[in-house]
This record gives sequence, structure tokens and C-alpha cells, in this order.
Amino acid sequence: MSTKSHKTTRDLQAEARREQLIDCAIQVLGDKGAGAGIKDIAAAAGVASGLVYHYFESKQDLIETIVRERAFGSPLEEFLRDPGEGSALEVLHKVVALYHEWISRYGRVIRILDEVARRDPEFASFRSRVVSQQFRALAGYLEARVAAGELRPHDTDLASRALLYPIFLGWQQAQVGPEFASGLVDLLYEGIRAT
Amino acid sequence: MSTKSHKTTRDLQAEARREQLIDCAIQVLGDKGAGAGIKDIAAAAGVASGLVYHYFESKQDLIETIVRERAFGSPLEEFLRDPGEGSALEVLHKVVALYHEWISRYGRVIRILDEVARRDPEFASFRSRVVSQQFRALAGYLEARVAAGELRPHDTDLASRALLYPIFLGWQQAQVGPEFASGLVDLLYEGIRAT
Repeated sequence: MSTKSHKTTRDLQAEARREQLIDCAIQVLGDKGAGAGIKDIAAAAGVASGLVYHYFESKQDLIETIVRERAFGSPLEEFLRDPGEGSALEVLHKVVALYHEWISRYGRVIRILDEVARRDPEFASFRSRVVSQQFRALAGYLEARVAAGELRPHDTDLASRALLYPIFLGWQQAQVGPEFASGLVDLLYEGIRAT
Repeated sequence: MSTKSHKTTRDLQAEARREQLIDCAIQVLGDKGAGAGIKDIAAAAGVASGLVYHYFESKQDLIETIVRERAFGSPLEEFLRDPGEGSALEVLHKVVALYHEWISRYGRVIRILDEVARRDPEFASFRSRVVSQQFRALAGYLEARVAAGELRPHDTDLASRALLYPIFLGWQQAQVGPEFASGLVDLLYEGIRAT
């Protein structure tokens, strides 16, 4: 008997199904907008609505799950836990590359979540709390590089936002090319590196 | 007979009425969302729909007028035409203060225009062209300060976006306080000042 995991095949299947429904919801919300319901999501997944309700209490619950489980904070934290031997400049380039990947995958649904947030202040503040995780993670890394003497002391929360906000908005407004993120890292790095 | 202007009292009244209708449309769109029509705008202005159509061909025309005539590019260009004797750092602080003022005034309707842009790629690209005026104006100022030796050579279009994008997104997501814009100027300035 394995002690590595208590998960049965059935548990794993349930988990996979749950992930698949989340992916499907992201797709459908991105395509149809905030008006898309559990019915549309079930139809797109080829399952009965009842099965979606088995995993998620409501559309609201499903939307909050998307925010919580697909936030950029998670892959960012994971990467920054052990970013390798690279310089801060190299690590920041890798961070924006990861962020770009994440936006390409989730950008469409994020626009829809923006609409939901605009109408629902409680959801907006829940989402704000989740999103702030990414800035805490990045600021924590910058703090460590300040402590190591690689970066000068600076407002690391501000620097984190100065790095990720423009990439997001540039993508959303389709006004900048892929070299924008990379140029932004170089520009900001000049402002925060130790001299 | 005055040669200063050919505008009659009647012309001036028409202009004032047109401006008032634009203000009213901004208010109503911000309150009611993209679904608000000429009827709602006329009602809010206390005039007949026919009068609105006297000034604007359609709701689309009215929306494009808002984008064109209330863009940040205009006050920014006006300020940068003669920014006074201040250092680049001081001028950039003034630019973000102006931008903050502009966002406070137009931020709500901009969210609605975002929704319209999402559904209408032609409008999105028209708006992109208008918005790019603000970045050209700011980049032009930065170029001049590079030429004067006050700033180091850098990608001035990128720096302009790096300055204005985070302020906009920070405002939109209500995640940053008013000191954010000012801190951002200081941070970016470190990256672009001549050494």
C-alpha cells in the first residue's frame, strides 16, 4: 500500500474532471461574456448541468474558483521559490515571460472578470486580494535582492506594479509588441539596480 | 465689425450646447453602461432626442466624439508645448498629476468605452490611434530632454507607456493610492536620467 498519496483513481478522475470544467468555463466566459451560464458551460463540456453543480455551488463559486486557482500569483511564487543562479535582471526577464504566457492564456477571461468586478464590489475586493499575491511575491524577491546588495533600496511593491501593470494594459489594448515587456524590464532595472 | 472671430452669439450657444451634450453623454454612459442610448442622454440633458441628433449623427458618432475631443492627448500636448522652466523630473510629476485629474474625470466612461472596443474592432483601432497621440506627445518631450542631455538616450515611447499605463490600471483596479503615481515618476526617472 502506497503511503505517498491517499488519492484513489476515483479521486484523481474527479480532480481531472473539475480542472476540465474550470478550463471549459474560462473558454466559454471568454467567448460569450459574463452572461454565459452554467448551462452554456455544461453544454460546451458535453455534460449535464447537474454535474457542474456537483463541483461548483453556483456560477459565482465557479468564477471565484477561476480567480483563486488560476491567478498568476501561484506560478510566480513557484518560480521565485527557486529562480536559479541568474542575476536579478535575468530573473525579471523570466518573470515577464511567464506573465506574458499567463496573459495569453487567461487575458480573455480576465476582461470578463473585469466586467463582473465593475458590477460587484464584493467580488472586486475578493479579486484584488487574490491579485495582490503576485505583487507580494515579486516584491519579496526584490527585497531579497536589495538585502543581497544587488538592487538599491526602493519601493518594491511599486516596482512590482510598475513591471506588471504596463504589460497587462499593453496586451489588453493591443498597442505594444512582445518586445515591450523585455524593454520595460531593462528600463526599470536601470532605476533599481545598485550603483 | 470684429475680425477676431466670425462666430456669432448663435454659434457660441450651439457650441456650448454641443459641449453640454457631450458632458451629459459621458455621465449617462458612465452611469448606465454601454447600453445607454440617445434617448437616455437626451432625457438626462432635458432635451428632445431630435436635438441630440442635430449635433450627432448617431450614438456611434457621439461616442467617437467623446474619444476624439476628450482624449488626454489634448491637455497633455497643450501643457508640453510650454512646460515652463522645471526639470524633466518636475515636468513628469506635473504630467502624472494632469493624468490623474483626467482619469478622475473620465475613468468611468473609459471603462464603458473598453467594453465597446471589445465588441467592435473598428472602434478599438480608431481609439488606439487617438490614444497613441498622448504617447507621441510625451515621447516627444522625452526626446527633447535626451537631446538636451538631461536624460540618457532611451526608448521614449516605452518610457511614456511605462509611466501612464500603471497609473491607469492602478486607478481602474483601485489597488493603489494617490502617492503611487508620484513614486512611479521617481522610480522611472532613476532609469532614464543622464548619469
